[in-house]
Amino acid sequence: VTARPLRFEDEALLVLDQRALPGRETWIRCHSAAEVADCIREMAVRGAPAIGVAAAYAMALAELRGEDLERTGTLLRATRPTAVNLAWAVERAQAAAASAGDTGSLLELARELHREQDEADRRLSALGAARFKAGDRALTHCNAGALATAGYGTACGVLRSAWEQGLLAQVWVDETRPLLQGARLTAWELERAGIPHRVVADSAAGSLIARGAVDRVVVGADRIAANGDVANKIGTYPLAVLAARHEIPFYVAAPISTIDPATPDGGSIPIEERDPAEVSEHGRAFNPAFDVTPAELVTAIFTEAGVLEAPYDEAIRRVAPG
Amino acid sequence: VTARPLRFEDEALLVLDQRALPGRETWIRCHSAAEVADCIREMAVRGAPAIGVAAAYAMALAELRGEDLERTGTLLRATRPTAVNLAWAVERAQAAAASAGDTGSLLELARELHREQDEADRRLSALGAARFKAGDRALTHCNAGALATAGYGTACGVLRSAWEQGLLAQVWVDETRPLLQGARLTAWELERAGIPHRVVADSAAGSLIARGAVDRVVVGADRIAANGDVANKIGTYPLAVLAARHEIPFYVAAPISTIDPATPDGGSIPIEERDPAEVSEHGRAFNPAFDVTPAELVTAIFTEAGVLEAPYDEAIRRVAPG
Repeated sequence: VTARPLRFEDEALLVLDQRALPGRETWIRCHSAAEVADCIREMAVRGAPAIGVAAAYAMALAELRGEDLERTGTLLRATRPTAVNLAWAVERAQAAAASAGDTGSLLELARELHREQDEADRRLSALGAARFKAGDRALTHCNAGALATAGYGTACGVLRSAWEQGLLAQVWVDETRPLLQGARLTAWELERAGIPHRVVADSAAGSLIARGAVDRVVVGADRIAANGDVANKIGTYPLAVLAARHEIPFYVAAPISTIDPATPDGGSIPIEERDPAEVSEHGRAFNPAFDVTPAELVTAIFTEAGVLEAPYDEAIRRVAPG
Repeated sequence: VTARPLRFEDEALLVLDQRALPGRETWIRCHSAAEVADCIREMAVRGAPAIGVAAAYAMALAELRGEDLERTGTLLRATRPTAVNLAWAVERAQAAAASAGDTGSLLELARELHREQDEADRRLSALGAARFKAGDRALTHCNAGALATAGYGTACGVLRSAWEQGLLAQVWVDETRPLLQGARLTAWELERAGIPHRVVADSAAGSLIARGAVDRVVVGADRIAANGDVANKIGTYPLAVLAARHEIPFYVAAPISTIDPATPDGGSIPIEERDPAEVSEHGRAFNPAFDVTPAELVTAIFTEAGVLEAPYDEAIRRVAPG
């Protein structure tokens, strides 16, 4: 049932257009890195780990076409500023090209990163699911599923793993304005996996938590700073505040590649502002795509290298020494 | 510039259809209480005080047509369960009919309640604005403006009054899913009043508050319990929690008719659940229309009878002895 948003065939990257889901399943065939960059910028492919994988394939396409890898990397990194996986994948490709030199090596690297992502997802999902108890009702925000990672999924992977072990009763899915990744993508993935779920307006999560209808909150991440502060889809921070107030766990599920030891704290993470028209056709709007949750509100971070807990600076130095 | 959502002319109540705003200004001509009840149920007219005024006119229409006032009251009260102003207006009309008896008295009563609402709004707005300081940036949720009260407005009235006194720099407007009353109605009212504003996704309010971009939160109310707990549009409670965490004032602006001394606390307030299709066309959804904010998170309640502050039970007994 795992959705596969990225496929490489016949010297092209096929990108499942997530803007059209769940209504239509259309694929965009990218023959060049520039076409992949467009897909990332316009959010045909989205989710921090998935855009890292897409960027790795884009670097491979650039290599196949004999394009300048430095310039391609710069183009890719400029598409979306908050997710750090993108820069991480570009750097790995540039380093590999510098050391190897034989054409075709970057395609192998991209395929390897893609496989690694799936393995990381499965490991961190199992670690996260181990925290669940039978009958738990979880709440998630945005989409941190297979569509967002090109693997098993991170936050949704934890939910899938908990469900497979009989430890999950139901999922509350924040619709996630303005682009409705929860209502469109997470609900679609949970439906395919047969996991009971209900979509709610983002603003309803507070009263669900206050009523005792949520046992755990699980979200993904776009960048984790060296001190454990977490940038994720706008609307994540209020959930962490509400979880703390009502004393339920707030978990972050993310691969190590999401951790950026070079960013000291959340205040240093660049927050992308997107087109105000996504929010309101009627008037002037302000549309930050992400917010920052301070580490003090995070119960645990599930990674493929283990479960991180406070003090996060030490835990992060251990798994991502920068 | 005050929008007038309700007008009584030629033995009919004209209802401005708020579902079509700001795109189109269409009026629904109601000749019977049943037609007014439809407008309330379908939210052509919405906002706790405005549906109270509409219900008073509906009772007058029933009287003019010689319809049973008991049955009309029951019909009106069943349209929307959370707002208490509706029940309050119906009861006032029934009591007036029982004591007076001459046909036409209920139309006079409705006009009087309508005038009283505007006067109450202006008084409570001035009291609220007195709490503002020059340069303040306020955040509001849903629409508690002229459209919601058929008067000067409550939360938006406070903002208008603060603006007129040079004490307001900007308003952040929560779009207010699922029906977008903020993006559609509040933005429209603020535009007409010339007040600078930006619309944001509901989930963005948390990071605005965390960044220090909000000095005060001001909302309306659909019912205030005897202990000061406040039912208001879904998404109000998370704002109160965030305001408390970041130590900024969280104000409620509402006429005395919104206070229900017969409801001991927020847990006893019935929360209307609306059609899940309002939230998601794609999957199963859960759509509570309101949430409850505990009195402990409310800095002050602005009413026409004065500013209420903790301990709310005493303050409420003073102004609404029930």
